[in-house]
Amino acid sequence: MRYNKKEMKIRLDYNNMMSTAVADGFTDKDFSSRLGEITNAFEAVKAGRGKNMMGWTDLPYNQTEVIEDILATAKYVRKNFEYFVVLGIGGSALGPIAAFQAICHLHYNDLPKRKRKGPKFYVEDNVDPERMAALLDVIDVEKTMFNVITKSGSTSETMTQYLIINDILTSKLGDKAKDHIIATTSKATGNLIKIAQKEGYKTFYIPDGVGGRFSELCPVGLFPAAVNGIDIKALIGGAKYMDEQCQSANVKKNPALMAGTLQYMAMQKGKNISVMMPYADGLKFIADWYCQLWGESLGKNKNLDGTACNKGQTPVKALGVTDQHSQVQLYAEGPFDKVITFIGVDEYRSEVKIANGCEEFPNVNFLCGHTMNELIQAERKATEYAITKAGKMNHTIMLPQLNEFTLGQLLMFFMLKTAYTGALLGIDTFNQPGVEEGKNATYALLGRPGYDEKRAELANAPQKQNKYII
Amino acid sequence: MRYNKKEMKIRLDYNNMMSTAVADGFTDKDFSSRLGEITNAFEAVKAGRGKNMMGWTDLPYNQTEVIEDILATAKYVRKNFEYFVVLGIGGSALGPIAAFQAICHLHYNDLPKRKRKGPKFYVEDNVDPERMAALLDVIDVEKTMFNVITKSGSTSETMTQYLIINDILTSKLGDKAKDHIIATTSKATGNLIKIAQKEGYKTFYIPDGVGGRFSELCPVGLFPAAVNGIDIKALIGGAKYMDEQCQSANVKKNPALMAGTLQYMAMQKGKNISVMMPYADGLKFIADWYCQLWGESLGKNKNLDGTACNKGQTPVKALGVTDQHSQVQLYAEGPFDKVITFIGVDEYRSEVKIANGCEEFPNVNFLCGHTMNELIQAERKATEYAITKAGKMNHTIMLPQLNEFTLGQLLMFFMLKTAYTGALLGIDTFNQPGVEEGKNATYALLGRPGYDEKRAELANAPQKQNKYII
Repeated sequence: MRYNKKEMKIRLDYNNMMSTAVADGFTDKDFSSRLGEITNAFEAVKAGRGKNMMGWTDLPYNQTEVIEDILATAKYVRKNFEYFVVLGIGGSALGPIAAFQAICHLHYNDLPKRKRKGPKFYVEDNVDPERMAALLDVIDVEKTMFNVITKSGSTSETMTQYLIINDILTSKLGDKAKDHIIATTSKATGNLIKIAQKEGYKTFYIPDGVGGRFSELCPVGLFPAAVNGIDIKALIGGAKYMDEQCQSANVKKNPALMAGTLQYMAMQKGKNISVMMPYADGLKFIADWYCQLWGESLGKNKNLDGTACNKGQTPVKALGVTDQHSQVQLYAEGPFDKVITFIGVDEYRSEVKIANGCEEFPNVNFLCGHTMNELIQAERKATEYAITKAGKMNHTIMLPQLNEFTLGQLLMFFMLKTAYTGALLGIDTFNQPGVEEGKNATYALLGRPGYDEKRAELANAPQKQNKYII
Repeated sequence: MRYNKKEMKIRLDYNNMMSTAVADGFTDKDFSSRLGEITNAFEAVKAGRGKNMMGWTDLPYNQTEVIEDILATAKYVRKNFEYFVVLGIGGSALGPIAAFQAICHLHYNDLPKRKRKGPKFYVEDNVDPERMAALLDVIDVEKTMFNVITKSGSTSETMTQYLIINDILTSKLGDKAKDHIIATTSKATGNLIKIAQKEGYKTFYIPDGVGGRFSELCPVGLFPAAVNGIDIKALIGGAKYMDEQCQSANVKKNPALMAGTLQYMAMQKGKNISVMMPYADGLKFIADWYCQLWGESLGKNKNLDGTACNKGQTPVKALGVTDQHSQVQLYAEGPFDKVITFIGVDEYRSEVKIANGCEEFPNVNFLCGHTMNELIQAERKATEYAITKAGKMNHTIMLPQLNEFTLGQLLMFFMLKTAYTGALLGIDTFNQPGVEEGKNATYALLGRPGYDEKRAELANAPQKQNKYII
């Protein structure tokens, strides 16, 4: 192991969720009075491990073989291609983007080739034609490896991109087009696996029990990470280390269970917003990844017992210190409707000194001689202090450093936290039935066979009134 | 004028805010019963135009001279520099980023030089040392023009960046360092104007009555936009066109007043979340810009009459269609706690055909022969349909096209909407006292002279308890 586990252990500091820090905070008694609920949630998650849609809990343990395949394939891609493009959306994109931003150089694509560990990296996670056209302006498809990622093999956005790219590749390269596409998909079902077999694409498989938003630690995330030079064994090692820490039924010893419980209790107090605010540009897109995990997992209109509800807490992404100049005014003075999660980093991977040169201007000169590192730490602490003083619930996750091992811990922490919170809420954390209506309406609008009924429903929907358009 | 006004008029469609579309929607009577409040808000904004912190309403009308200076300077920068870097944070960064993303090529910095209209463009809006180090890895400061933007001239983050960059420039270029820095700041007060005068920097001025989040249409935004080849006269023309449409006291004819009133009425129904979801990658960062405008303007703990409150609606940024695979599950099935604003585009600037090649797979083949343009429109309409069917309030802003003229309208629309909403809420829309506490604590932590009292306060704050850290 490259990293010392103990030195690299991430920490959850929930002091500012407690009544000792904020007026409507919790007391130790709040945990003991909910012991039954908390224990039930812990046991439900434990019992579910590895079953149904909880296959993701096995990922730190069952991928030895596929990791070797990933590493070998990634090495080949790094050596033979100038561009590496992920075609995917949602869980197939957010994880790869987050890991890339966290571990790779913050201006990776702008580095000269010799300073990069691999090809230039792009993730196409939308179907805006302007963006596809822009991508084609800056890559040479003949020097590009495309990784098409969709578990179902029928995600409209991803298959649209595949069709466009495959057509261009085939017109330029004929039979050799197949050497430019790697498919990551379900082994058993769906179109993409059938297409891949027919065309002869290299494939990686997404395990049955791993849904999109829980897929970063399977080949969905691991293969792009490996191409980008990320140490995926350390990433998995970090996830395993966190999983081990979350084996305890004691909420005060299980960080993910504690975090989930705190958030659940906050929801019961009416906090319907969860802000994720890392103080590191490298963690900017972890907030996006978290927003999918949290929003899609907990936003449900049915309880497990089938009764109706409208549950869920809306995730909000922010970035420290940047959003101190955008959102902190609201967080400090606005309603008591949110829980703020700060993520801090003890030791950044660079140190930048703030030069002298403003001796005449004391309002600026006090900065001189410090480092940017001291400034960002001071701002994080100061914002935490101000938000707490304003009585707003917050807690902080501290990373000793941002690296593969701490990133792996962080991902596993959030996934387990989400599972515990879903169990506490009594909903199905792992489905997403609410997206079907929009998908079906899209199919109807595009004339897909079999959607005549939905087409008729849309045609008969109340017409827009012109008086409400200005 | 490059654009036909009437053809390029943006539209507000609020059908899905009404009871004809969603159960808890509004009726025409809701407007008439609030006529007094609405008229008062309209009159307050009208009376405030051009005064105090509402100088931004004059920007479409009073910049003829400075625009010529901006254009000439921008031409010089485009011709003589390889890199152009904005040093700024909050309002000094979000507008420049949003306009760049909206109008310039979506992979601008990756284009070869001959295909770009200007230098590679970077905005440094954080003090993460890893990011500053990364920037210095990819630019050559001797070929870079830096635009330092801070109205107060004492923003810690921006002045930190300035100190670092000025030191590097001076060590490499001596007296010629000054030719690589342009300052955009207050004409009358602050440190940066004094430093600029002493060093001999080219300067642009931020008018007194223009606060950070209302500054995109003054030199803060116009100069970077011009360097990036954006037609700033058309941008201003669009803002003027929107301003003209918002001269009516009749809420049904004034789009910004209508949008503000709807949002205000929704807040009264408990909707404490405002989602901004453009269906265009080009508009992705307009959502970020909006989040500052909305959050910082309306998140207040004092009414205008001095009484205490905790007002504000939390803005959330999303991107269509991407976030259909992340947030729409929550929007559809979760609580009735949000208003969703979609932004659509009638005609994208590129058209991409979805190629054939999946005849054997009907689940994919229905896409073939369509365009990405049809797909993104169908998905926007389908999502709007699904969200409305789920009973969630939403409205749509339609842009005939995304260009400078429609962008100018959009910016002005949101600024006026915010001003009206602030007036309806009875708060000061234009201050941000809630950020002072964090700033002062930062100063104290960094040992700034004059902050001994705050330092003592911090030292005496309740200590963190180790038992709440796991």
